[in-house]
Amino acid sequence: MTNIDTLISDNTQTRIEKDLLGEQAVPASALYGIQTQRAYQNFDITGTPISEFPDLIKALAMVKAAAAKANYQHGLLTDDKLSAITEACADLINGEHHEQFIVDLIQGGAGTSTNMNANEVIANMGLKKMGFEYGQYSHLHPNNDVNRSQSTNDVYPSAARLAIVFAAAPLKTAINNLQHSLAAKGEEFSGILKMGRTQLQDAVPMTLGQEFHAFANDLSSETASIEQACLQLCELNLGGTAIGTGINAPKGYASMAIEELAAISGLPVTLADDLIAASADMGAFVTFSGALKRLSIKLSKISNDLRLLSSGPRTGLGEINLPARQPGSSIMPGKVNPVIPEAMSQTAYQVMGTDTTITMAAEAAQLQLNAMEPLIVYNLLNNARLLEKSIRMLDELCIKGITANEARCEQHVQNSIGIVTALVPHIGYENASRIAGNALLSGSGVAELVKQEKLLSDEELAAILSPDTMVSSI
Amino acid sequence: MTNIDTLISDNTQTRIEKDLLGEQAVPASALYGIQTQRAYQNFDITGTPISEFPDLIKALAMVKAAAAKANYQHGLLTDDKLSAITEACADLINGEHHEQFIVDLIQGGAGTSTNMNANEVIANMGLKKMGFEYGQYSHLHPNNDVNRSQSTNDVYPSAARLAIVFAAAPLKTAINNLQHSLAAKGEEFSGILKMGRTQLQDAVPMTLGQEFHAFANDLSSETASIEQACLQLCELNLGGTAIGTGINAPKGYASMAIEELAAISGLPVTLADDLIAASADMGAFVTFSGALKRLSIKLSKISNDLRLLSSGPRTGLGEINLPARQPGSSIMPGKVNPVIPEAMSQTAYQVMGTDTTITMAAEAAQLQLNAMEPLIVYNLLNNARLLEKSIRMLDELCIKGITANEARCEQHVQNSIGIVTALVPHIGYENASRIAGNALLSGSGVAELVKQEKLLSDEELAAILSPDTMVSSI
Amino acid sequence: MTNIDTLISDNTQTRIEKDLLGEQAVPASALYGIQTQRAYQNFDITGTPISEFPDLIKALAMVKAAAAKANYQHGLLTDDKLSAITEACADLINGEHHEQFIVDLIQGGAGTSTNMNANEVIANMGLKKMGFEYGQYSHLHPNNDVNRSQSTNDVYPSAARLAIVFAAAPLKTAINNLQHSLAAKGEEFSGILKMGRTQLQDAVPMTLGQEFHAFANDLSSETASIEQACLQLCELNLGGTAIGTGINAPKGYASMAIEELAAISGLPVTLADDLIAASADMGAFVTFSGALKRLSIKLSKISNDLRLLSSGPRTGLGEINLPARQPGSSIMPGKVNPVIPEAMSQTAYQVMGTDTTITMAAEAAQLQLNAMEPLIVYNLLNNARLLEKSIRMLDELCIKGITANEARCEQHVQNSIGIVTALVPHIGYENASRIAGNALLSGSGVAELVKQEKLLSDEELAAILSPDTMVSSI
Amino acid sequence: MTNIDTLISDNTQTRIEKDLLGEQAVPASALYGIQTQRAYQNFDITGTPISEFPDLIKALAMVKAAAAKANYQHGLLTDDKLSAITEACADLINGEHHEQFIVDLIQGGAGTSTNMNANEVIANMGLKKMGFEYGQYSHLHPNNDVNRSQSTNDVYPSAARLAIVFAAAPLKTAINNLQHSLAAKGEEFSGILKMGRTQLQDAVPMTLGQEFHAFANDLSSETASIEQACLQLCELNLGGTAIGTGINAPKGYASMAIEELAAISGLPVTLADDLIAASADMGAFVTFSGALKRLSIKLSKISNDLRLLSSGPRTGLGEINLPARQPGSSIMPGKVNPVIPEAMSQTAYQVMGTDTTITMAAEAAQLQLNAMEPLIVYNLLNNARLLEKSIRMLDELCIKGITANEARCEQHVQNSIGIVTALVPHIGYENASRIAGNALLSGSGVAELVKQEKLLSDEELAAILSPDTMVSSI
Repeated sequence: MTNIDTLISDNTQTRIEKDLLGEQAVPASALYGIQTQRAYQNFDITGTPISEFPDLIKALAMVKAAAAKANYQHGLLTDDKLSAITEACADLINGEHHEQFIVDLIQGGAGTSTNMNANEVIANMGLKKMGFEYGQYSHLHPNNDVNRSQSTNDVYPSAARLAIVFAAAPLKTAINNLQHSLAAKGEEFSGILKMGRTQLQDAVPMTLGQEFHAFANDLSSETASIEQACLQLCELNLGGTAIGTGINAPKGYASMAIEELAAISGLPVTLADDLIAASADMGAFVTFSGALKRLSIKLSKISNDLRLLSSGPRTGLGEINLPARQPGSSIMPGKVNPVIPEAMSQTAYQVMGTDTTITMAAEAAQLQLNAMEPLIVYNLLNNARLLEKSIRMLDELCIKGITANEARCEQHVQNSIGIVTALVPHIGYENASRIAGNALLSGSGVAELVKQEKLLSDEELAAILSPDTMVSSI
Repeated sequence: MTNIDTLISDNTQTRIEKDLLGEQAVPASALYGIQTQRAYQNFDITGTPISEFPDLIKALAMVKAAAAKANYQHGLLTDDKLSAITEACADLINGEHHEQFIVDLIQGGAGTSTNMNANEVIANMGLKKMGFEYGQYSHLHPNNDVNRSQSTNDVYPSAARLAIVFAAAPLKTAINNLQHSLAAKGEEFSGILKMGRTQLQDAVPMTLGQEFHAFANDLSSETASIEQACLQLCELNLGGTAIGTGINAPKGYASMAIEELAAISGLPVTLADDLIAASADMGAFVTFSGALKRLSIKLSKISNDLRLLSSGPRTGLGEINLPARQPGSSIMPGKVNPVIPEAMSQTAYQVMGTDTTITMAAEAAQLQLNAMEPLIVYNLLNNARLLEKSIRMLDELCIKGITANEARCEQHVQNSIGIVTALVPHIGYENASRIAGNALLSGSGVAELVKQEKLLSDEELAAILSPDTMVSSI
Repeated sequence: MTNIDTLISDNTQTRIEKDLLGEQAVPASALYGIQTQRAYQNFDITGTPISEFPDLIKALAMVKAAAAKANYQHGLLTDDKLSAITEACADLINGEHHEQFIVDLIQGGAGTSTNMNANEVIANMGLKKMGFEYGQYSHLHPNNDVNRSQSTNDVYPSAARLAIVFAAAPLKTAINNLQHSLAAKGEEFSGILKMGRTQLQDAVPMTLGQEFHAFANDLSSETASIEQACLQLCELNLGGTAIGTGINAPKGYASMAIEELAAISGLPVTLADDLIAASADMGAFVTFSGALKRLSIKLSKISNDLRLLSSGPRTGLGEINLPARQPGSSIMPGKVNPVIPEAMSQTAYQVMGTDTTITMAAEAAQLQLNAMEPLIVYNLLNNARLLEKSIRMLDELCIKGITANEARCEQHVQNSIGIVTALVPHIGYENASRIAGNALLSGSGVAELVKQEKLLSDEELAAILSPDTMVSSI
Repeated sequence: MTNIDTLISDNTQTRIEKDLLGEQAVPASALYGIQTQRAYQNFDITGTPISEFPDLIKALAMVKAAAAKANYQHGLLTDDKLSAITEACADLINGEHHEQFIVDLIQGGAGTSTNMNANEVIANMGLKKMGFEYGQYSHLHPNNDVNRSQSTNDVYPSAARLAIVFAAAPLKTAINNLQHSLAAKGEEFSGILKMGRTQLQDAVPMTLGQEFHAFANDLSSETASIEQACLQLCELNLGGTAIGTGINAPKGYASMAIEELAAISGLPVTLADDLIAASADMGAFVTFSGALKRLSIKLSKISNDLRLLSSGPRTGLGEINLPARQPGSSIMPGKVNPVIPEAMSQTAYQVMGTDTTITMAAEAAQLQLNAMEPLIVYNLLNNARLLEKSIRMLDELCIKGITANEARCEQHVQNSIGIVTALVPHIGYENASRIAGNALLSGSGVAELVKQEKLLSDEELAAILSPDTMVSSI
């Protein structure tokens, strides 16, 4: 679809490459080759090329280097070719030449175009290192050498899994930082008594500190849940080649490649038990998406609570103030809106919705492969990044600047009927219900009415209604 | 899976029936036959038999009667058989023998078991009317006579569409009633001034009546949207038989059957343009589900707003009171919760989630059929009923009993900074912003500060801040 | 909404009960009381009462018994009351009186009605054991005694979590059995060579046994994933009472109640670290739903593959035969459809869609509670059961009866071009591509063309194309 | 979050602007101002700035121009200011200065930052036209003049709706073209007899032409469904300002602004009946998303069918050939995969999943506004474009090049048992079932067996089994 003119203009120098379908000119200076160029023309979908996801390029390079080393040990690559390939991969890992990965991340072919983009770029980088011209593939071939003992169907999922694990790292850091900021607010607000609410109705007292500690603790299992998913992602089908039977790979290659990959990546990668099952299985991706979704649910819940607690300034709950980040309205002067939590919730909804996309794509596997895998990979890499950025935004631009309206919080407790709950063990549920009803009708306070009815002595009442007792009985 | 023992115990009288797969005993008194019984044993999934959806049985009977009349006119049924079939159908439409529809609504086979359950029950009802014994199918055959010129693949979708249209009727009534109740509250509260809120922050004044009128008007397009979907559902593939080519149906049968069905059902049914496309197309179901989802979004939004506006009683917005329906807490005496809107939102979420189910099932069509159609039908019939019941609940048990806290609403307006907005056309956005900021910091009122700064005369100020002006400038 | 007449007809004996909202007659013989009856009237939504989920009643009884024992040890219940409560709970655990749990599983109030239904039934069961009349709550009170030191907000989530763990047990058994049946077919078919397919295109050879082993192994991580979710569900907020601060529960009660509950349930229940966070947190439910969804994705993929592999009999892939379960068509004689896998996929879609429902409900938590929890519990209990039944159906009615079309499988391999892949390491990618292209155009076999071109000797060719080599090179 | 350094480097010339929150330097050459810059720093989420959606900028400019004209007629703008604003808007409509719209499309604040970006850019463009410097807002003010009588809460939804209607136009063209190509294939293949399939099992004959016509016709209602949604989108709340009460807009302004906007945009825009309801209502967006989802379901179904029909080349259905677009495998030479339909299905899943996102965002409206609207707008604009590009890809790179395997299609019919269906009206369902069973077991043909059994004469048989009869009986 993408016009070839965007790659080759009138005065571009070109070289001719050839494949199963015929000949084609590619820019002479391009590190990619004919198959990449065909894919570039076929898939003009998201406008998001592979190059926007350095983690994926890095992971592809690691897989290619590991495969080369395993091939070499099986006598399938010469010293020269091994050096050429591994040095090219090292350059890619170092961030060089990423702009050569021009194919759209969403593509048909189950990732073949991504794999071939890597094969071609590495072959040409290697050819240059070996002193040849770009395109002289008889000296170092994208398929016969760089892709030796490999298939897209084991390389692409393996690289994608690694890329997601890489993308998870800064996300986990962002979560930990956010959790720390929330806990710090929990400490800061530990002395501020307020009313807890269930179903938006006044419940019983707690401290604002407890509320923020709960936010922090609500996130405490999220990094663990992401890590667990990452562990699953580290089970690879590398060496299974086309359909998991390992056709065209020498015996022993698979475990050797995995060992090399563990060394290069520093990740605890292992070989899946059943490579045929593993080739079409999207389970670990689904679990990772589930972890991102669960995280999103919690982030949105916290954001919603922040918006509720800061509602007002005059006609809402008004218990906390979010830092003002920008004027809130083009028409209402002085209005400051909770823009940061609002943006956080939107990211969360994006992740939750695309979890449905990932579910559909995962269910669409057929027989020995899932052709929809690129869509899964696109959304997971994208969502991990969206969440990381949004969490940092929430942390830095909102949580750290939150202040409490202590007076308002205290007034809510003074004014509340909910404290009647603490009397139940002493005067029974029926008496307490009656007192509550009277308080609501008359506008009187609970303590006052209990005193009037002489249900408890002043001392008893004071002890029962002491804040310390009410907020931590466990 | 369901043990046959649940149908036939030791002392059940049985008769022997036979099909492609062999012989089988069925209860002698059963109106259904061998194919129904096989399906009963195969599908023990939801525990929800067809008999729980009378609309579907009624619709099946209408389709069968229409087909019989069209067959008769083509000389394919005798007078006797026609009478037997149409009288049996009339009985079913009148609600008789629904307990004979024992198959689970979710089933493999794209509805074949539902169609055969109808064919067998009608055949046996007809046989009885003709003076024969149950099972003497040579006199009136489930396939050769009752199903004459038909296939599951045109009968089942046609009947399902009609059933959904029937189910939509009480739903529309419930929506209209709810809308009426909301509008009535709008009238009742038309004199109560309150603060509007955007992003949970104080905005500008409105009346509580306007807020409830907006709830009512928010629903005003929903019955139309359901009706539009129903019109789409009235496009049938009846007469297309197995794959839409009309095999085994005489020429002219399709339009005749449709004409008869229009007469019997009273619905504006028409024949689809391309019966092959129509056989596998779930578009109208998807649109209907979309209409239910959109309705659900609105119902949940209204419910959420009711919970916000009634939050408190002391530490929330507290602008309205929902009728108390039950004690709210097993531990907190006197607490009354917004249980009805909470239940409404839950139903709404159920509909929204199962719209995803319907989407997946619709996408799973393959070539000339969608085998997942029973799942779609199950969810649509179920969701229409869930919504109807929940809307009536919301209407009767909540909306009609809502009262306003007029004093609280007024106090919110008095107290608000948001009214500064009305000054912008007179003193400019910058001045107004400054006034707003000072009001927030000092706790002073907006009018007071404007007077202090002599930006406007007392008369101008009074005119600008008059409630009537502020709440309806259009 | 539900008319009270459905509970009390003209000649029902009644007793009068009273609560915050006033008096009400309940059937004299009812073990439930006024609050249950109010909830029954309020919530007529799904038509699915709690009684249809025995696991939930059992779990509620366990929690109540554990709480009673902990209360007793704190001196808050007499010997008599303790005996009455724990004996009543034992009866419920044994399956007695479940019909008294009449409230709809979907309800407003975050489960208060479910908790009160349990409190009232246990109180009346206990009163009877103590020799009192139903309703004489001064001797054993639903709130003051049965619910002592408890709130719906800790009891309901705790019981729901246990119930789901109970429901997971037969599901895991069903998965294991299915996996076993698939593996057995893997053994049975281990000698049958066939073509593997990627993207529905001919790929390289494998055995039918490998294909079924892959199905089995694809499920191998699913019980572990469910168990992991169950472990998370075993972290309870029991003792947190209303909002997690433990108000009205004596110090030390929480851990004591958990200890008792572990003993009664036999489950490794533990106390959550932050009871305030735990009160509103739906994380473990979301993870459990994710596990069911992942399982569903795999079951649907397997079902889809079975339908593909058995497509035909004449114009499809036709490599396997599914057992005929019922005539497949009302119009097409002899047609037998893959009804069981079709039903399995429909259940899978139901679970996948309602995962979205659960996501939405989980995100709707506000401040110290999630009012939408009953919807989550309803769907999880329902989905676990749907899956269990469907998996057993798939296993018993389909997998166990599958047979192979060995001749067809072999013919596919003979006929295939895909085996050219095995030649790549020997003749290179370009040569192999050319051979493949010629084979496709000419209709000739791959081996034949290689021989013609004298690219390999006959011996080499035979060795390379030997099935054993091709199907297991790892 | 986005470092301000990305906007202002050491040697950038700056000017100082000021708002409610204080002073800030902006690049001297920037047409945007302080509020845009703050938003740029706050929201670094998707990396997709408004500038990537020219339709939205165009729509914003149209709304601003219409508002200016209505203000002018109410005497609220001078001749000079009117000219400055409308000329600036005309430039934007012509595609100038779009790079000045730097804010992320996903943002908190319900679109305030997008509206202010437009206000500031238009003000500065106007100032330049008037001969002033950028930032001299006393001569033409972003809020007091450009945003006069407006609020984000009416401008943003109105512009977003228009933008979506604009984006729908090329999408509809793409659908129409695709439909045309499919119908052309229908004509081309009208003489090719083949077997129809239901539930992937052999059914009854049809032509390949009918199959492609059905694909075409399956899309025939999709443009209408999009247009209907567009009509709903044309109902605007412009003039409702902050919450729909029209505060700060003169009486009569709303209908005048709508009239001007109709003239400028050429769209049949109308004023919503209840502007308060309309301000928070996302109904039309939800309906539009539903239309895109329904379209996606159909596109994915067609793509799946194309993959099924072209499966093979040797071991699949093999009835059609998709044009080869690129080598299909890095390891399997000669393999050509259905990459285009695979990419189409992935786009479809993306749209289906983000429909869930849109549902969640729509449900999150609160009281007088929906703060999540930017997420909805982002996904709708994105999805419309994804679909348009993918449909063009499917049309140009796949459909137009499809060829038929006529021999294979014919062989399938010859070989099939499904034609037995045509005999049912003549020999009855039981006889036909027996014949079918025997054919399957013996491998014999249906006609042969009928002749053996002398159930029909040769002439009758020939007439019944004539292709013309079988494929069009309606």
